Amino acid sequence: MANDKVPVGISNRHVHVTQADLETLFGKGYELKPLKPLSQPGQFAAEEVVNIIGPKKSIDKVRILGPVRSATQVEISRTDSFTLGVNAPVRDSGSVSGSAGVILEGPQGRVELKEGVIIAQRHLHLHTDEAAELGLKDKEWISVQFDGERSITFNKVLVRVHPNFAKDLHLDTDEANAAGLNNGDLGTIIK
Amino acid sequence: MANDKVPVGISNRHVHVTQADLETLFGKGYELKPLKPLSQPGQFAAEEVVNIIGPKKSIDKVRILGPVRSATQVEISRTDSFTLGVNAPVRDSGSVSGSAGVILEGPQGRVELKEGVIIAQRHLHLHTDEAAELGLKDKEWISVQFDGERSITFNKVLVRVHPNFAKDLHLDTDEANAAGLNNGDLGTIIK
Repeated sequence: MANDKVPVGISNRHVHVTQADLETLFGKGYELKPLKPLSQPGQFAAEEVVNIIGPKKSIDKVRILGPVRSATQVEISRTDSFTLGVNAPVRDSGSVSGSAGVILEGPQGRVELKEGVIIAQRHLHLHTDEAAELGLKDKEWISVQFDGERSITFNKVLVRVHPNFAKDLHLDTDEANAAGLNNGDLGTIIK
Repeated sequence: MANDKVPVGISNRHVHVTQADLETLFGKGYELKPLKPLSQPGQFAAEEVVNIIGPKKSIDKVRILGPVRSATQVEISRTDSFTLGVNAPVRDSGSVSGSAGVILEGPQGRVELKEGVIIAQRHLHLHTDEAAELGLKDKEWISVQFDGERSITFNKVLVRVHPNFAKDLHLDTDEANAAGLNNGDLGTIIK
């Protein structure tokens, strides 16, 4: 492969919400205010934050990412899952059936989630053209290696290809910290 | 190698103290009270806990491990380093020169550490006989692979061999959570 390097994008804990849940949390007719764009086109960090209340402890001021979605989803690290006291499964984004529940708290109300709390499966976003260049297909599993004093090879990296995606390896804070990574650090694809 | 599997021991954040610092924190003539033995012979978790006060935030009730040592040392995860607001280097235990500082707070007093705060270099403890059986030498670097949905290969694992050691791969909570590991899970040595 000519260019087999991929940049890291570190996902801190965050929440995706439906319009209905947003209005419960922030008030009727409320709309998310974009704060800054994310690596994937059209996605943004919103100004709004909520508190996540777990059976054991709470984690306050967790950012909402927009735009609103068809299902509310909370993405946390495994470290966070121990803090909250929830048994969150490792899932691809959108696969929340049977996942863990928590309470979300906004300035105007609370939403009790029966499910929706996941630890994100590590994954590589690729534009269709980038996938073709790298010889990778949607839903393929690859490994990505990082060097340095905390060198790690991440196996079970799910490839996700879409015309709206841009090249970015999404790791959570546990994964990034285990390997000593910062945003934009480059890993090497190992098929 | 006939038996190339090694069990994981997950190190939560902890503190090693000198007798002098222990007495500053807990009072003159104080002695550590062993709570439970650790995997390495002679080492124990003590009943005593202290608060770690960083420039940004504090982390309370961090356990002291005994017996007392010749230098006070605080071992934290990279996640903890961001919470505390300190720039802790990745170091082998005992190598604290030029590392980060914090304040330790006990019931009877505070100790201001100019250095001693590190992120532990991942390492494999082996008894001399176990090292011989595995064909590994002290200070050698190896990789250890874990399977499962968060499969990771940890590279840069430092081998430490001593007649007082017992086979145990020491990872911190970031590393264990990144790979979805629990205490006692088995990894495979890759030389």
